[in-house]
Amino acid sequence: MLKECWKKVQETCPLVHNITNYVTVNDVANVLLAAGGSPIMSDEPEDVEDITSICGGLNINIGTLNERTIEGMFRAGRKANELGHPVLLDPVGTGASKLRTETADRLVRELHFTVIRGNISEIKTIAYGSGTTKGVDADVADAVTEESLPAAVDFARGLAKRLDTVIAITGAIDIVADADTAYVIRNGRPEMGRITGTGCQLSGLVTAYVTANPEQPLEAAATAVTLMGVAGETGWERMQEGDGNSTYRNRIIDAIYNMDGETLEQRAKIERM
Amino acid sequence: MLKECWKKVQETCPLVHNITNYVTVNDVANVLLAAGGSPIMSDEPEDVEDITSICGGLNINIGTLNERTIEGMFRAGRKANELGHPVLLDPVGTGASKLRTETADRLVRELHFTVIRGNISEIKTIAYGSGTTKGVDADVADAVTEESLPAAVDFARGLAKRLDTVIAITGAIDIVADADTAYVIRNGRPEMGRITGTGCQLSGLVTAYVTANPEQPLEAAATAVTLMGVAGETGWERMQEGDGNSTYRNRIIDAIYNMDGETLEQRAKIERM
Amino acid sequence: MLKECWKKVQETCPLVHNITNYVTVNDVANVLLAAGGSPIMSDEPEDVEDITSICGGLNINIGTLNERTIEGMFRAGRKANELGHPVLLDPVGTGASKLRTETADRLVRELHFTVIRGNISEIKTIAYGSGTTKGVDADVADAVTEESLPAAVDFARGLAKRLDTVIAITGAIDIVADADTAYVIRNGRPEMGRITGTGCQLSGLVTAYVTANPEQPLEAAATAVTLMGVAGETGWERMQEGDGNSTYRNRIIDAIYNMDGETLEQRAKIERM
Repeated sequence: MLKECWKKVQETCPLVHNITNYVTVNDVANVLLAAGGSPIMSDEPEDVEDITSICGGLNINIGTLNERTIEGMFRAGRKANELGHPVLLDPVGTGASKLRTETADRLVRELHFTVIRGNISEIKTIAYGSGTTKGVDADVADAVTEESLPAAVDFARGLAKRLDTVIAITGAIDIVADADTAYVIRNGRPEMGRITGTGCQLSGLVTAYVTANPEQPLEAAATAVTLMGVAGETGWERMQEGDGNSTYRNRIIDAIYNMDGETLEQRAKIERM
Repeated sequence: MLKECWKKVQETCPLVHNITNYVTVNDVANVLLAAGGSPIMSDEPEDVEDITSICGGLNINIGTLNERTIEGMFRAGRKANELGHPVLLDPVGTGASKLRTETADRLVRELHFTVIRGNISEIKTIAYGSGTTKGVDADVADAVTEESLPAAVDFARGLAKRLDTVIAITGAIDIVADADTAYVIRNGRPEMGRITGTGCQLSGLVTAYVTANPEQPLEAAATAVTLMGVAGETGWERMQEGDGNSTYRNRIIDAIYNMDGETLEQRAKIERM
Repeated sequence: MLKECWKKVQETCPLVHNITNYVTVNDVANVLLAAGGSPIMSDEPEDVEDITSICGGLNINIGTLNERTIEGMFRAGRKANELGHPVLLDPVGTGASKLRTETADRLVRELHFTVIRGNISEIKTIAYGSGTTKGVDADVADAVTEESLPAAVDFARGLAKRLDTVIAITGAIDIVADADTAYVIRNGRPEMGRITGTGCQLSGLVTAYVTANPEQPLEAAATAVTLMGVAGETGWERMQEGDGNSTYRNRIIDAIYNMDGETLEQRAKIERM
C-alpha cells in the first residue's frame, strides 16, 4: 500500500490548490514539490474557482484566516466538491477563537471533505463544537497516549462515519481512520514540534496523496502521514552538532525529496486496526 | 540576570501572539520555537481579541501593514493592555511613508507598550514624528557609533521616560533603556544585516522574554537582545566556505535553539550605564 | 557586460520595492540582500506610492493577487512610471485564471514596464491574451527547445517591440530580448524547478539589476538571468548526499551572496543573437 500510493504521486504529479496561512506557506509549497506534486496558492474569492478547476485537489488551512480568505475557502470548496476533487481541511487553531471555531464548523457543515487533519484538540473541537486548543498546539491533557489510544481510535472512527470523511489525528501517535478501518502510525520525532508548520506541510502532503490515489483516500492519507514521520526520522539522522530547528526543517523536506518507496515501507511503523 | 531571564523562558514556554509582516513571519515563528516559546499568528480584527486573550504577550510589527491589519493591531493591543499583557511595537519603516509614520504614532498614543524596538532611524521617527528612514534600514547618518553613544543613550532614556516604556535601539551597538537605566550591548555581527528579518525575529524574542519575565521588562529585553547578538556570533562560527546569508539565517536560529544560560553569560558583551 | 552590470549593483545597492506573493516573499528579500540590493515590501494602496518614491525600482508579481493588492500594483506602477523608475512585471499564473489574465493584461496596457519576465506559457498569454499555463508552471507543449528556439527568439523580439519593453522568457533555455537584440542563456539546472519561487527570486534580481544599470536594461536583465543560472550551478556543486530542494534553495541564495564578477563571466553560457 505505501509503495503503491507513493508511486502514484511520482507518476501523476498532482497539482494541489492551497488556501493556506502566510506563516508556513513557503514550506508547504516546497514540501509538495519535494514529494513530487505541484503547488499553486490562491485565496482571492474572484480567483479561486478558476484555479481549483485546473487543479486535482484542494487544501484548506484556516491558520491565518480573514474575511476575504474565508469567502475564498467556501467558493473554492464548493467548486471542488462540484468537480469531485478531493478536499482537505486543516482546522488550525479551531477552539482557540470564536471565528476559527465557527469557520471550521461552517466549513464542515457546508462542504464535503475527503480528509480532515489536525491535532487531537482541533479534531475534538470539530467533533464537539468547542475545545481546549492551546493556541495552535494540542492541549497536553488531550494527548493520545498508549493508554488512551483505543478510545481515540474509536472516537476517530465515529467522527469519520458521522462526517463521511477520513479523520487524521496527528501527534506523537498518529491515527488515520475512516468509518471502518484505522491506521495507527508511530513514526516521527518529538523535535518536529519545535518546527513551525510541520502540520501544515503534512496537510499539503495528504492532499497530494489523496489526489493521486482517489480510489483509496484512507490508504493515501495514512501513507502521507507515514511519509512525514519517516522523513522526520531520516532527516534527523543527518543532523550535525549545532544544528537546530531551522536546519531540521530543511532536512525533513530534503528527506521527502530523496525518499523512495522501499525506504518508506521498510521504516514504516504502521498498524491496521 | 541573563541566565535567570533565559531560564524563565525555558520554564514557562511563553505563548506569543504576533501581528507581523508576511515577509519574515516564518522566521519569527521558528525563532520563537527555537527560544523555547510558542508562536501564534492572527491579524483579522474579528479574531485577534480571542487569540490575544489566550496568549501571554503581543508582538505588533507594522512591516506589511494594511487597513485590515491596522485595525487588528489596535483591537489586539487594547485587549492586551486591558489584560495587562506585555505588548511590543516594532515600527518597521516608520518615517518611510505617511501611513507607516501615522500608524506608529497612533499606536504609541493610544496603546501602552512594554517595549518599542527598532533601528535608530525608526526610533527617532517615534520620538520626533518624522525621520530619515531609508526603506526599512537605518540611515547611515543616524548610526550609533562609539562617539554618538552617550547622546544616543540619553535620547533612549528620555524617550523611555516620556512614553513609560523600554526603548530598544538595535544596530552595530545596541541600547536597551528605561527612564533610569540603560544597557549597551556589543554582540552580533555586521553580516546579520544581510539577512531579511533579523530585526523582526528579535522583536519576537523580546516579546517572549518580557512575557516570561514580567517583573523586569528592561532586563528581559536586554537579555533577548544579547541572545540574538550571541547567536549571531556562534551561528557565524559554524559557517563554512561557500555559505551565505540564507544558510546564516538557519545557523542563527539553530544557535538560539542550542543556546544555554552559561554560554549566553560568558559571551555577553553587555554594560550597564 | 556581465562584470560591469554586476559591479554596478554592488556599488549602488539598489533599493527595490516589491509587491509580491506571500509564498516566496522571504526568499525574494534574501536573494535581493544576497545580490547586494535592498528590499522593501508594501502592497497597501495607501502605502505604496510613498514607498515606491523612496526606492529605485519596482517589482510587481501577481502570484497571490487580491483586490486590494491589485489596486496597490496600479498605484505603485503609475507612481514609478511618473518618476521614471524601472518597473518589472512577473505575470505569475496568467492564463490559469480569468482574474490573473485580465490583471496582467490591464497592467500591460496601463503601465509601462521595463522588463516582463515569465515562463513561456505566461509570456504567450501576455502576447495572445489567453494561454495554456499549467498552474504556475509552463506547459510542456510550450517549452523552448533547441528546435523551437529561433521561433521563440523572434516571438520575444516581436513582443518586446510591440510593448516597448525587455522580454525575459525563462526555462531550460532562457531568452532575454528587446526589439533588436536577444540574449540566449543556457545556464541553470533542471532541479531548480523543484524549488518554489526561483522565478520570483529571479524577478527580484532582474529589478535590482535594471535599477542599478538604467542605461542598459537589456544587458542588465540578461546579466541577472545569467547570475541566477550560474548560481543554480555553483550552488548545486555544494550539494551533499541526502540534500534536497530545501537545502538547494539555501545553496542558490548563498551562491549569489558569494558570487564575483569574474566567476560570473567565466561560467556564463550566454550568446548574443
